[in-house]
Amino acid sequence: MDARGGSGSGTSDEDRWARAAWSRLAEPGDERAVELIADHGAAGALALVLDGSPEAHETFVRRAERLDVDRDLEIAERVGARLVCPDDEDWPSGVDDLDTPPICLWVRGPADLSALARRSVAVVGARSCTSYGDLVAADFGAGLADRGFAVVSGAAFGIDAAAHRGALAVDGVTIAVLAGGVDRAYPVAHETLIHRIADTGAVISEVAPGSAPTRPRFLLRNRLIATMTTGTVVVEAGLRSGSLNTARTAAGHFRPVGVVPGPVTSMVSAGCHQARRDGFAEIVTDVAEVIDLVGAIGRDAAPRPSAPVRNDDGLDPADAAALASVPVRKAASVLSIAVAAGLVPSSVLASLARLELLQLVVREGEGWRKRPPERAGTA
Amino acid sequence: MDARGGSGSGTSDEDRWARAAWSRLAEPGDERAVELIADHGAAGALALVLDGSPEAHETFVRRAERLDVDRDLEIAERVGARLVCPDDEDWPSGVDDLDTPPICLWVRGPADLSALARRSVAVVGARSCTSYGDLVAADFGAGLADRGFAVVSGAAFGIDAAAHRGALAVDGVTIAVLAGGVDRAYPVAHETLIHRIADTGAVISEVAPGSAPTRPRFLLRNRLIATMTTGTVVVEAGLRSGSLNTARTAAGHFRPVGVVPGPVTSMVSAGCHQARRDGFAEIVTDVAEVIDLVGAIGRDAAPRPSAPVRNDDGLDPADAAALASVPVRKAASVLSIAVAAGLVPSSVLASLARLELLQLVVREGEGWRKRPPERAGTA
Repeated sequence: MDARGGSGSGTSDEDRWARAAWSRLAEPGDERAVELIADHGAAGALALVLDGSPEAHETFVRRAERLDVDRDLEIAERVGARLVCPDDEDWPSGVDDLDTPPICLWVRGPADLSALARRSVAVVGARSCTSYGDLVAADFGAGLADRGFAVVSGAAFGIDAAAHRGALAVDGVTIAVLAGGVDRAYPVAHETLIHRIADTGAVISEVAPGSAPTRPRFLLRNRLIATMTTGTVVVEAGLRSGSLNTARTAAGHFRPVGVVPGPVTSMVSAGCHQARRDGFAEIVTDVAEVIDLVGAIGRDAAPRPSAPVRNDDGLDPADAAALASVPVRKAASVLSIAVAAGLVPSSVLASLARLELLQLVVREGEGWRKRPPERAGTA
Repeated sequence: MDARGGSGSGTSDEDRWARAAWSRLAEPGDERAVELIADHGAAGALALVLDGSPEAHETFVRRAERLDVDRDLEIAERVGARLVCPDDEDWPSGVDDLDTPPICLWVRGPADLSALARRSVAVVGARSCTSYGDLVAADFGAGLADRGFAVVSGAAFGIDAAAHRGALAVDGVTIAVLAGGVDRAYPVAHETLIHRIADTGAVISEVAPGSAPTRPRFLLRNRLIATMTTGTVVVEAGLRSGSLNTARTAAGHFRPVGVVPGPVTSMVSAGCHQARRDGFAEIVTDVAEVIDLVGAIGRDAAPRPSAPVRNDDGLDPADAAALASVPVRKAASVLSIAVAAGLVPSSVLASLARLELLQLVVREGEGWRKRPPERAGTA
C-alpha cells in the first residue's frame, strides 16, 4: 500500500489526491474548506480552486499556485507515511465529532487508528514539567499502554515525551500527533523519539509533508488529540497551558477529562486544579482511575453508541483474512487459523479478539469458530 | 461570670447544673440521653437517673454513683472554663444540626462561639503530615484568621497544630475542640499551644472537666468540629484518616468541604483526593478558594439564613458594653469608646465589626457612631 492507497476504502483515487491537495491548501480547522468540500466533494472543490472560480476563496487560489501534490505524496512515501481519508477503515472516527474535522491525515507507522475510538487516552501536559510530572506521565503512559490503551500525545518536551516514553518502555502503542508534517521531527531534539513512535505506533499530522509546525497549528493539532481519543488526562499544566485547551476541547466533545493533582505550591499543577474546580475534569491519581474515567460513558446525556457492528463489512485486511480462515462448524486453534490465513499467531489472536467483540466469531474451548450468520443477524 | 453563669440565657441554674451532670453521665452522641432530656428536660431526666427510675438507663444510673457535679464545676472555674448551654447566646448553633447535639459545652477562652456560625472554618488533617501539609495548614490558618475567620481544629499533632499556630501567628481567633476535658491538655506535648489557644480563642469540650480523651470521644468530637463551622478543609489525610470522618460529617450536614490536593505519590494526600473523587469535596488550593467555598451557600436546597439581626437584643456582654459607649450624634474613636466602656481597644474593635455587621453602628471617617434607630429599623 503506497501513500495513495486506502485500505478497502470507497474513496476514489481522485478524491484521495484532492484531499492530499487540500491538506496543503487549507489550514487545519478552516471552515471554508470544510464547506466547499461538503458542497462539491474534495475533487470538485479542488477543481473550483484550480479554475480560480469566484466561489473558491482567494487564500486557496493563491496557495494553489505553489501546489505540488505529487511531490508531497512522494515525500510521504519516502518516509513511509500513508494518507488516511475519512472513509478509510483506518480513520480515527472520533475526529468526526469536530465542526471542522481534518480533510485527511498523514500517518507514519503501523498502529491501527480505528482502534483509537475504543481504547486510547491522550496524556498531555506542560513542556516545562517538574520531575514529579515526568514521573507520573511516564507511569501513566506505561500503565495505560500495558493495559492495551494507545497513549496519544504531542511529542513535545516534558509531559508529552514522558507519556510516549512510558508507553514505549512496555512495548505499548503510542501515537504522536504533530503540528507540522510527519516527515519533520519537531522538536528536533525528539527526532529519535518520534522515529521510535513511528516504528511501532503512529506519527500523525493533518498538514502535508514538509509543512512547518506553526503556532496556530499547535492549537489546532490539540483538537485532534482531544477527539481521536476516548479521554484526556492532563498531568501538569500551568494556568495558560495549551494542554488545558486540549482538555477543554475533549470535555466540549463529551470526552472524560482527568487531571493529576499536585502540590498547591507548584505552578504547573495550578492548571490541573483549576480544570477540576471549573468542573470539566475529575482528578485522577493512578492508572486504574484513568481507565475508570475513560471507560465511563461521557457526560453527554445520550450515551455514545457502543453497539457492535453486526457484519463483516469494513474489517481491516488482517481481521478479514483471519475471519476467512475461521471454520464455521468446528472450532480451530489460533495456530491453525494463522497457518491457514498466512498470518503470525499474535496478529491472529488480536484479530480474533476484535472479531469476537464484533460478534463474528465465538470461542469454543481452546479454539474459535465463526458465529453462524443467522445468529449474528439477530439483535 | 463563673462556670455556672450563662450570659443572658433563659436556662435556669437547675437546668445548667443538670446539663453539667449529663456531660459526665452520658457519652457524647448518646441518643438515649438526648431522648430523656427531650422528654423530661435536663433536670427532670437527671432526677429519673438519681431516683434509679426504670425509665433511666442502667448506664446512667451506674455512672451517677460517682457523679460530683460541684467538683467538675470547681475544676472548670479553676481553669477559667465556663459552661455553655443550648439556649445561651454563646452557643455555637451549628451543632444543633446534629441528631445528637451536645447537651452542653465546657469552654475555656474569650472567643464568641456564636460567631462561629458566620465566619469559621475547620482546618483538619493527618497527625503524621508532611512538611508540605504543615506549610499549607499554617498558611491557611493564618490567611483565614487574618480575614476574620475563626480557625477550628482538634489540637492534634500535624495539620491541626499547624492550622492553630498559623491563626495564632496573625493574632487571629482559633478554637480547639478536645476529646477530653478542657482542663486536660491533650496531647500533653501541646500543653503550651492549648494554653495559648485558651488565652485568645477557645478550648472546647463536650465532656466534663477531668474526663479522659478516649478513642470513641475523638470520633464524636469530630462531629462538633464539622458542624460548629461553616465549612471544613482537609489539608492532608490518609485513606482511613479521622479527618475524612470530619469531612463526611460536614458534607452530610450540608457544609461545604474543601480538600487540598497534593502529589499522587503521597499517602497523606490520598484521602483528600478520594474525598474529591467521592464527590463530597472540592479541591482548594489557596485561602481565597477556601473563603469562596465556605462563603457559598451550602448544598442544602434551602439557603441557610444569613440576614442580620436587626436589634440589640442578645448581644454578648462585651459587644453590648461597646455599643452602649458608641455616641449617636458624633462619631468617636475606638480608643475613646474603649475608655468609656472600660474595655481594651482590640476587643472594642472586634465588637464594632460585629455591631457593624448587625447594622447597629456605622463608620464615619476614623470613628464610629450608633446607627439612628429609625434607620436601623428599616428593612
